[in-house]
Amino acid sequence: MKYSPRLAQLIEALRALPGVGPKSAQRMAFQLLRDGRSAAQTLAQSLEAALAAVKPCRRCRMFAEEDLCAICASPQREAGLLCVVETPADVVAVEQSGSYRGRYFVLMGHLSPLDGMGPEQLGVRELEAILDEGGLRELILATNPTVEGEATAHYLAELALRRGLRASRIAHGVPIGGEIEYVDGGTLARALSGRQNI
Amino acid sequence: MKYSPRLAQLIEALRALPGVGPKSAQRMAFQLLRDGRSAAQTLAQSLEAALAAVKPCRRCRMFAEEDLCAICASPQREAGLLCVVETPADVVAVEQSGSYRGRYFVLMGHLSPLDGMGPEQLGVRELEAILDEGGLRELILATNPTVEGEATAHYLAELALRRGLRASRIAHGVPIGGEIEYVDGGTLARALSGRQNI
Repeated sequence: MKYSPRLAQLIEALRALPGVGPKSAQRMAFQLLRDGRSAAQTLAQSLEAALAAVKPCRRCRMFAEEDLCAICASPQREAGLLCVVETPADVVAVEQSGSYRGRYFVLMGHLSPLDGMGPEQLGVRELEAILDEGGLRELILATNPTVEGEATAHYLAELALRRGLRASRIAHGVPIGGEIEYVDGGTLARALSGRQNI
Repeated sequence: MKYSPRLAQLIEALRALPGVGPKSAQRMAFQLLRDGRSAAQTLAQSLEAALAAVKPCRRCRMFAEEDLCAICASPQREAGLLCVVETPADVVAVEQSGSYRGRYFVLMGHLSPLDGMGPEQLGVRELEAILDEGGLRELILATNPTVEGEATAHYLAELALRRGLRASRIAHGVPIGGEIEYVDGGTLARALSGRQNI
């Protein structure tokens, strides 16, 4: 089946979305061009508006529309805590847990020299500037529990320790509500080695 | 977590896509705003271009950029066969089967009076105009095997028969590669009642 050129282009553009294959892209395009079309118009306008207005927060690199994001700008946030995460989605996840009142730093990735992701791409210079400001009590490393995430956490911990700052890593273990029977070996090993007195 | 206003708007707009919930919409928005942003720009432009250029084919109501879609305009298509389907995606599916060389008519839905979908919304007047033109040998009804699809097929068959035209319904039965053990009762009943001599 040959689509008309602009329809083919739209389907191709939709395939750039994460988790969208050729079949869903076609379904999306057909629906967008069909019902009333106002959803398509809204989407195009929202994309343009977000592209124009959203940029990284000057301090933490989270998505923001002002110079500083809402979290960095808030005086209610504990200024002594800085939580380092890999992505903006991780900020959202930690915020939704409702258990953290400090600020963030978003790396937008992890150390991965083969992919050209070195300290500079991760904003390590900006992070060091925050560490050097003083006022920080603890650097919490909440990168993913993958090989690259662990390496990144260790690299950043080194930066904090060298400045006499406390660095901590979030705990890994059996997830709440998970069943020990179905948890993988690596997680169980971490749960055992990280055991705490009760 | 409160997103910045334009980010929230973009996430909301992405949720209008079929099969996209709040979590995937967030993931899509974050990815679009992150890597290079050219994918987001392309998507916005493709949407605008498609909205401006794509319209229903004058004859069959399939998406087209000219007055007539490529299939209606092609002299290689058998003009005596007209296959009626519910959606543009159905045209794509039949085309991909490679087993049909006639033309199409796209209803853009099925009879469903409670949802305000009557003969007029389905373009029945335009379909009758094609039937009245002459030159048609057979009307193939390829609406979905649902209650509404069957009702629509019967309604349209009536229009053809009244004009002395042959109307046919596509066969329903066990799908190729399917296992009889796992096929539902309704399908098996249709497969049995539609059995053919070998």
